[in-house]
Amino acid sequence: MTSFAPGRVLGIDPGLNITGYGVIERIGGKLQIVEAGVIRGGDRTSLTKRLAGIYHGICEVLTQFQPQTVALEELYSHYERPRTSILMGHARGVICLAAEQAGVTVTAYAATKVKKLLTGNGRAPKMQMQQAICREFGLVTPPEPPDVADALAIALSHHFSQQLPTLRELTQSDRANHRLRS
Amino acid sequence: MTSFAPGRVLGIDPGLNITGYGVIERIGGKLQIVEAGVIRGGDRTSLTKRLAGIYHGICEVLTQFQPQTVALEELYSHYERPRTSILMGHARGVICLAAEQAGVTVTAYAATKVKKLLTGNGRAPKMQMQQAICREFGLVTPPEPPDVADALAIALSHHFSQQLPTLRELTQSDRANHRLRS
Repeated sequence: MTSFAPGRVLGIDPGLNITGYGVIERIGGKLQIVEAGVIRGGDRTSLTKRLAGIYHGICEVLTQFQPQTVALEELYSHYERPRTSILMGHARGVICLAAEQAGVTVTAYAATKVKKLLTGNGRAPKMQMQQAICREFGLVTPPEPPDVADALAIALSHHFSQQLPTLRELTQSDRANHRLRS
Repeated sequence: MTSFAPGRVLGIDPGLNITGYGVIERIGGKLQIVEAGVIRGGDRTSLTKRLAGIYHGICEVLTQFQPQTVALEELYSHYERPRTSILMGHARGVICLAAEQAGVTVTAYAATKVKKLLTGNGRAPKMQMQQAICREFGLVTPPEPPDVADALAIALSHHFSQQLPTLRELTQSDRANHRLRS
């Protein structure tokens, strides 16, 4: 892959059974869902076959939609559920590989940061997150299955975090304002 | 890959910084190391680049040595160290993918089973394990770095477990003996 759609973000919610994905982009001043869906690993097949399924699915999405960035949930979000974390690690591994092979940057967002960026509350419940997704994309009902909404939330987090001035810029700007006022 | 070397086992000790591997086979009635070494992910580079390095390294070993089986450490061996487990999960994910793409079966062995098979003690210390590796392969000193010895231990476990009659066969045989005696 040599060219990317600038500003197009692929959010991924990795899972061995269902991996949600959502491609978003600002088109004509409006944030839009370019494509969203799930890749099913197949819960009755072997671990290696499921991983191959996820890898090929993500490769296809990367080739077809050419995002500039892949946004993934942070590595250590599920410390309290080691089994889930380790399995998610396997899925996340093949997703990172697909992105690296396509030359696409991977950025990670902690679950609390995703919630904070979308609702202002790092501990927002699922319903509040779904409402935020509906509001941002002008949807009447939240996307189904929930893995799609989760992937869109991660993509949105990346989009928002790119719009925000950095803390350093803010600090410098505040200092400049302070100098102007004093 | 369409043909395998029958009985040839590739043992892998997955890690993001160093992945140890060891290819073993019984040749002329003697168990031998065909090839062993490490794939270095590069600890100063990004997670995605390290995963790509591991994946390509394992693909090369699979293509060159055409093992019949890949033996890996069990998924949940490091519950008590969640960070290590999750990172190992990433490395393990791309290794499983490489094996699946090459059409090679992956078999997992718990760390305690590896120790038990090699020394008779599921809690054997590192030195006892290294001595077992030296004894099996007629080595004067243990292979270095330790990741190579660990990979060889996992390969050996698979080899031994293939030699052993299964528990079910043992039970049936015991029953038959019991009938003969009674």
